[in-house]
Amino acid sequence: MPGKEENFSEWYNEILQTAEIMDVRYPVKGLYVWFPFGFAMRRYVYDLLRSLLDRDHEEVLFPLLVPEQEFMKEAEHIKGFENEVYWVTRGGQNELDVPLVLRPTSETAIYPIFKLWIRSHRDLPIKVYQIVNTFRHETKHTRPLIRLREITSFKEAHTAHTTWDDAENQVKDAVKLYKDFFTQLAIPHLITRRPEWDKFPGAAYTIAFDTIMPDGRTLQIGTIHNLGDNFARTFDIRYEDAEGEQQYANQTCYGISERCIAALISVHGDKKGLVLPPEVAPYQVVIVPIVFSDERKAEILDAAGSLLLRLKEEGVRVVLDDRDERPGAKYYRWEQKGVPLRVEIGPKDLDEGVYTLARRDGNPKSKVRFDEIFDRIKTTFEDIHANIQKNAEEAFKSKIKDCRTFDEIKDATKSGVARIYWCGNPDCGQRIEDQLDLSLLGISEETDDHGSCIVCSKGNSRVSYLARTF
Amino acid sequence: MPGKEENFSEWYNEILQTAEIMDVRYPVKGLYVWFPFGFAMRRYVYDLLRSLLDRDHEEVLFPLLVPEQEFMKEAEHIKGFENEVYWVTRGGQNELDVPLVLRPTSETAIYPIFKLWIRSHRDLPIKVYQIVNTFRHETKHTRPLIRLREITSFKEAHTAHTTWDDAENQVKDAVKLYKDFFTQLAIPHLITRRPEWDKFPGAAYTIAFDTIMPDGRTLQIGTIHNLGDNFARTFDIRYEDAEGEQQYANQTCYGISERCIAALISVHGDKKGLVLPPEVAPYQVVIVPIVFSDERKAEILDAAGSLLLRLKEEGVRVVLDDRDERPGAKYYRWEQKGVPLRVEIGPKDLDEGVYTLARRDGNPKSKVRFDEIFDRIKTTFEDIHANIQKNAEEAFKSKIKDCRTFDEIKDATKSGVARIYWCGNPDCGQRIEDQLDLSLLGISEETDDHGSCIVCSKGNSRVSYLARTF
Repeated sequence: MPGKEENFSEWYNEILQTAEIMDVRYPVKGLYVWFPFGFAMRRYVYDLLRSLLDRDHEEVLFPLLVPEQEFMKEAEHIKGFENEVYWVTRGGQNELDVPLVLRPTSETAIYPIFKLWIRSHRDLPIKVYQIVNTFRHETKHTRPLIRLREITSFKEAHTAHTTWDDAENQVKDAVKLYKDFFTQLAIPHLITRRPEWDKFPGAAYTIAFDTIMPDGRTLQIGTIHNLGDNFARTFDIRYEDAEGEQQYANQTCYGISERCIAALISVHGDKKGLVLPPEVAPYQVVIVPIVFSDERKAEILDAAGSLLLRLKEEGVRVVLDDRDERPGAKYYRWEQKGVPLRVEIGPKDLDEGVYTLARRDGNPKSKVRFDEIFDRIKTTFEDIHANIQKNAEEAFKSKIKDCRTFDEIKDATKSGVARIYWCGNPDCGQRIEDQLDLSLLGISEETDDHGSCIVCSKGNSRVSYLARTF
Repeated sequence: MPGKEENFSEWYNEILQTAEIMDVRYPVKGLYVWFPFGFAMRRYVYDLLRSLLDRDHEEVLFPLLVPEQEFMKEAEHIKGFENEVYWVTRGGQNELDVPLVLRPTSETAIYPIFKLWIRSHRDLPIKVYQIVNTFRHETKHTRPLIRLREITSFKEAHTAHTTWDDAENQVKDAVKLYKDFFTQLAIPHLITRRPEWDKFPGAAYTIAFDTIMPDGRTLQIGTIHNLGDNFARTFDIRYEDAEGEQQYANQTCYGISERCIAALISVHGDKKGLVLPPEVAPYQVVIVPIVFSDERKAEILDAAGSLLLRLKEEGVRVVLDDRDERPGAKYYRWEQKGVPLRVEIGPKDLDEGVYTLARRDGNPKSKVRFDEIFDRIKTTFEDIHANIQKNAEEAFKSKIKDCRTFDEIKDATKSGVARIYWCGNPDCGQRIEDQLDLSLLGISEETDDHGSCIVCSKGNSRVSYLARTF
């Protein structure tokens, strides 16, 4: 496999295939097939996301098909999507009376129903989410998990509140929730407020999470939108307040797609294949019996089999690789798949009453006594997570460079992200973007650091980031 | 609420709304919205289905959009679906070069990839499943969870094997799996082999599960198809056998949709609302504090709150209804939602050190000592499941009548299902269907009982069923 920094695209395509994550051979551009192993990763990652959301959201499910008249209601929203929505125009042999849009996102499917659900201030807040497939007719270069025509795994949350301040607080809660999620995946991220010209169509403003991919480009992995009462006015979502007055609801929405899995793969993977935090690894432990001679084979396989059962009972996701193959070939296969911990059992181990442990994140092998294996696995998983996180953060930080001149920016963004001061003025922002052919991610939500705007030199300008983006 | 036997449609529509399962107000015919409570039911039901499948299937995910050329490959299959598929013809402002079908089911999406996955007999068997949305442009009367334009929750399994016999065995395994599933939902069912003219388009044969709804009509709730090598020939799915010869694969597929939830609601529900087996009830226990006076209010709420925490710790899905309302109103609400067990805590209970238990399935109230609550809940859940199952089976059996004449059939199928002998000859079968305007479900897979064909009097004819169907 090539190095992921040197040739990211090649590395990425190869790992998707060798680790059996996505099959890219589906006969339509931009549509891909989740292999069983890839889908298992998806399941654990989305279980995690669900468990965070379930604390104070309810899961729902709205239809995929949006009738033309609803889709066409919100002017800015249409402008943002009309060039990339798919239209269903025929049913059976007949033209449909009303063309239907495949949701590119579900505001226009959900908000006509919110209008019915919301009558009084006592109905608020509403906090729901769904995990669904959404569609974009991408004309640009498509890429599995990153730029898709069918986004198979879009988690979109939608909330409604009485006041702007409540919506603001919900945005803060969502930022915290997304931070938790990406921290549990050990994915470092920038949190910025997108420039006005790059916000979600129809939103008051957009907060975005970006990570930095191995080639230095940023990948947007989550967005949170304060919609104010824009959509409420369009879809007539009103409530009666405590004084009996009709008021428009204030809304937010926030989404995460399978790009979180693209990030998981790319941020942690290496030349051997996947590296996964134990919490989301489809297999957390692989047991490899080391059999040199027929003489002790049964004994070793017995020990391996009984360890398998014991670990399963403890809820560890474990696989026993007892196929008739060289250990080296087995190591290679399970390293490709990112199994965090390998337990080897050979004749010498049996004699000494120990297992040999090998960690996917690269630390030297160690031995553990039979009766200490559970505790050791638990602490080793924690240690692996911490180590993966540390490595990811170091790589992340090394890719962000403070820049004071356009030349420094050009240099920094060849392989990473430029950290600059920007006054917030769209003229300055768009001038940098156009002149350098880069994207301004927006003003950092994580620091109050101030300096002079890199374009107009205005003081008290805030930290912002420039990058090549996916 | 009306009685479900007397006016099923009205009862069904009302329960969907009052128990908050589906919102029927989405502005496109045949598309509905899952309320949070309905979605929670769906989650537990499909968790159960997943756990059964995960024993020896792998979950995957294939694209929704099928290109015209793949969809058009299997002649019988097209004939079966061409009048009811949705076509995507536009992307953004442009016509698509290749029109895309919204999958009505995924054979034509999956099997071109099976062709790539299957090379050698060592690659077989393959057993995968996915849970996805599928689409039918229904022109008939649509109905939530039963006849839909977007089937939101289609579990479809697809398997490939070396031989016809292996595929046969897989059909048997699938029948067993579906029996397990419906038994855990306490849903009685008929298992029949569909007549030739009613099998899945492109299949060698179809085994179907039907339950009987309160109005006596049957609802098909699961199908299992032996595809033989029909699709393998169309999609060129071949493997090299042990002798190095190229052979076509033998395939099966089997599906269950959200009709399983329609059945769950309809088979067990009553005039008060939902009745649910504890395993799939979104809330298994509701705690209702009975407060007569302010004096002991704090004490009672404390006891209720601490029971809530203890039950949660034990993994019981429990809700505490401490709203400022009369107990009667609370009972009513949670009965509508089918909560299997209500725990009341009043001043007298506190004094005696007991909780009062009320079962949704109608048995009289009972008392349980504080320290015996966990054991009692466990045994009560088992008892409730058994009781629900017994009631459902009695109702089911009472709706099936042995019939020896056409007049008896006419009479029996007014409110149920006619059990007849049928020789298996299509001429006889279609004659009964046409003459009586009923559907022949097919020959029973559950009994070897024999008799004279109701049409031609041929001896040794097998048991079959006639019904009005959804």
